[in-house]
Amino acid sequence: MFQVSVRDDEVDIVIAAIEPDLTSFLEEWRAVFSRFHLIIIKDPDIKGELKIPGGFNYDTYTKADIQQIIGPSNAATFSGYSCRYFGYLLSKKKYIISIDDDCIPAKDTKGIQVDAIAQHINNLSTPATPFFFNTLYDPFCKGADFVRGYPFSLRNGVSCALSCGLWLNLADLDAPTQALKPELRNTRYVDAVLTVPARAMMPMSGINIAFDRELVGPALLPSFKLAKEGKFRWETVEDVWTGMCVKVVCDHLGYGVKTGLPYVWRKERGNAIGSLKKEWEGVKLMEEVVPFFQSMKLTPAAKTAEDCVIEIAAAVKEQLGRIDPVFTRAADSMVEWVQLWKAVKTRT
Amino acid sequence: MFQVSVRDDEVDIVIAAIEPDLTSFLEEWRAVFSRFHLIIIKDPDIKGELKIPGGFNYDTYTKADIQQIIGPSNAATFSGYSCRYFGYLLSKKKYIISIDDDCIPAKDTKGIQVDAIAQHINNLSTPATPFFFNTLYDPFCKGADFVRGYPFSLRNGVSCALSCGLWLNLADLDAPTQALKPELRNTRYVDAVLTVPARAMMPMSGINIAFDRELVGPALLPSFKLAKEGKFRWETVEDVWTGMCVKVVCDHLGYGVKTGLPYVWRKERGNAIGSLKKEWEGVKLMEEVVPFFQSMKLTPAAKTAEDCVIEIAAAVKEQLGRIDPVFTRAADSMVEWVQLWKAVKTRT
Repeated sequence: MFQVSVRDDEVDIVIAAIEPDLTSFLEEWRAVFSRFHLIIIKDPDIKGELKIPGGFNYDTYTKADIQQIIGPSNAATFSGYSCRYFGYLLSKKKYIISIDDDCIPAKDTKGIQVDAIAQHINNLSTPATPFFFNTLYDPFCKGADFVRGYPFSLRNGVSCALSCGLWLNLADLDAPTQALKPELRNTRYVDAVLTVPARAMMPMSGINIAFDRELVGPALLPSFKLAKEGKFRWETVEDVWTGMCVKVVCDHLGYGVKTGLPYVWRKERGNAIGSLKKEWEGVKLMEEVVPFFQSMKLTPAAKTAEDCVIEIAAAVKEQLGRIDPVFTRAADSMVEWVQLWKAVKTRT
Repeated sequence: MFQVSVRDDEVDIVIAAIEPDLTSFLEEWRAVFSRFHLIIIKDPDIKGELKIPGGFNYDTYTKADIQQIIGPSNAATFSGYSCRYFGYLLSKKKYIISIDDDCIPAKDTKGIQVDAIAQHINNLSTPATPFFFNTLYDPFCKGADFVRGYPFSLRNGVSCALSCGLWLNLADLDAPTQALKPELRNTRYVDAVLTVPARAMMPMSGINIAFDRELVGPALLPSFKLAKEGKFRWETVEDVWTGMCVKVVCDHLGYGVKTGLPYVWRKERGNAIGSLKKEWEGVKLMEEVVPFFQSMKLTPAAKTAEDCVIEIAAAVKEQLGRIDPVFTRAADSMVEWVQLWKAVKTRT
C-alpha cells in the first residue's frame, strides 16, 4: 500500500509535547516512527526537561527557540496543543504528520498493529475525489474501484492535501458530550477512507492528521484560541477551525480532503466534568463558525494557500468580528501567521 | 438496532423478477423477508410462470396487470430492472425496500448473517445529517455520537428519505470496468453508515435500496432507458439517474440520503465483454448527466417531490435535450410518471 514514490526524507512527524516525558509514547511508536525525522515542540507552558529515548532522528524546540525565531510577542500563539504549529512552520518537508502524545498505535479488526504513517502517506500520495461521491469509498484503496455511473472524466481525481485519521477508545467528543456519556468509547473500526465531498464542511480533529505542506501548509494555522481553553482536546476547537480553513482552501484550489483510516488508540486523559466548569464557549461559537465557513466563497484572485488565508481572515473580521472579540483576534492571528510563514520561508 | 416505532405492516419489499423462478432467492431470504409483505413484479419481457415458494405474504403483478392499470402505451417503461417501479407505484406503505433477485444475504466480519431489512429500516427511521459531516460516521448508530465541533443546532438531524446499501462479491461496476478487471471482487466489509452531504451527488445503485415512499416516492422513477440496455446491471444507468433525481429532491426539501450498510452478496451473472459489444452509451452520457444534476437548483415553488420532478424534467428537456434524444425521452417519461403516480393515488 505504501507508495514507493514517497521517500522517507520527504516526511516530518511533528509532535507537540504537552508533557515533558515522551518515553512511553515514543517507545509505543518506535517501529513506525524511527525511519522518519521528528520535530518535537515542547509546550512553552510546561516545565521540566524533555525526555526522549535513544534511536530516533529528531530536533526539539522549546520556548526559547520559539521566542528567538518569532519574537516574544507571538509566543502565546504556540501554547498547549498549538505548539505543534511551530513545527509546521519550521518543516521543509513535503508531508507533515502529527499525532497527539496521548495516542498509541491502534490494532485493526484482525489484531494487527496499524502503521498510521504508511496509511497517511498512502492517503496523501493517491488522488482524492471531491467532485462525486464513490459509494465504495476511496477508489484508490487496494481492491476498490469506481462504481457504475462514476464519470470517467473525474476518475483521475485531484491531489489530496489533507488526511484526517480517526481514534479508537476515547472518542474525540466535546466536553459536554464527554461529561454526559463518561462511559462512551469508540470501538467501531471502520475499514475505509473516503474523500469529503467538495463544499461539505467537517470537524477536523488535530489528534491524528497529515497534510501536504507544499499545497496547503499556510492554512494549517494556530489562530482560534478560546479564552479559557486548557490542555485537553475537548477544551479546544483550534483544530476544528483550522480544518474548516483548510477545507475552504482545498475546495477553492481544487484539492481533496480524505477522512477515515488510519486509526490511533487514545489513552484516557483528564476529567470532562472539571472542564465543563470552565464555561467552555466552544459549543456556542461553533453555531456561528460552521455557517460562516459553509457560505465562504473565495475570489479568483486567491491563487495560493497564503492568498486564501488572507481572504478568509478579512471575511472573519468583517462577518464574525462583531459577534465576539475572539473572532477578531483569530482574524489578526491568521494574518500574522501568513506573514510569519513567508518570513520563515524567506529566511531559510 | 431495529426501531420499535416501525411496524412490519409499514414496509413493502419490492422484488423485480428478471427470471421467473424465485425459489432459491426467496429461500435464501426467508428468515429476513417472511415477516413482511412482498410485491413481486414479473419483468414483462420474460416468459414462464413465476415460481414462488410457500410461506410468504405477497402479491404478484405481470404484464397483463401493468397493461390493465396503466394502459399498453406505457408498458415499455417497466421492462427489465425497471419493472420494480410498478411495485413502487402500487405500494401504499411508508417504507419500500428493493433488492435485486441475484443477491443473497451477506455476512458481516464476524460471519453473522446481516439482516438487511432491519438495517435499512434503522437507516430510514433515524435522522440523517446532510449539513455537516460527522467524521465518526452515522451518529445515530449504536455506540456512535457527534464529534467535537459538531454544532448542537444540527444534532437533531433531518428525516432520512433514502438508504443506499452496498454489495459484496460482484461489485457494481460499469461494463468497461468489469470487462477490464474480470477478477475484481469487493471483499471489503466497511462497518459504517454515513449521510451523503447536501449538494454532493453520488451514483445510487438500485441493487439494494430502501426509501420513504411518503417523502420521496414520486422521485424514484423509471425514466432513463439506454437504447441498447439489457438485463445486466452494468448495462443500465436508470438507477444512477434516479438516484441523482432523489438526491436533488432531498437537498431541496431538506431530507437526507444515507449510504453504507447493509451489504448484500451479489452472485455472478452475465458476461461483461458481451455487454461491451452493445456499444454501451452509459459512459458517454454520464459526462453530461453528472454536471447537470450538480448544478440543478429548484425553485421555492417546488414544495413536494412531485413538484420537484416536474421542475427537473423541464430542465432536462431544456438543457440536455439538445445533446441527445435519450434525454428528451427521459424528460417526457418523468412527467408521465408523475401523472401516473397522481392518478394511481387518486384511484386507490
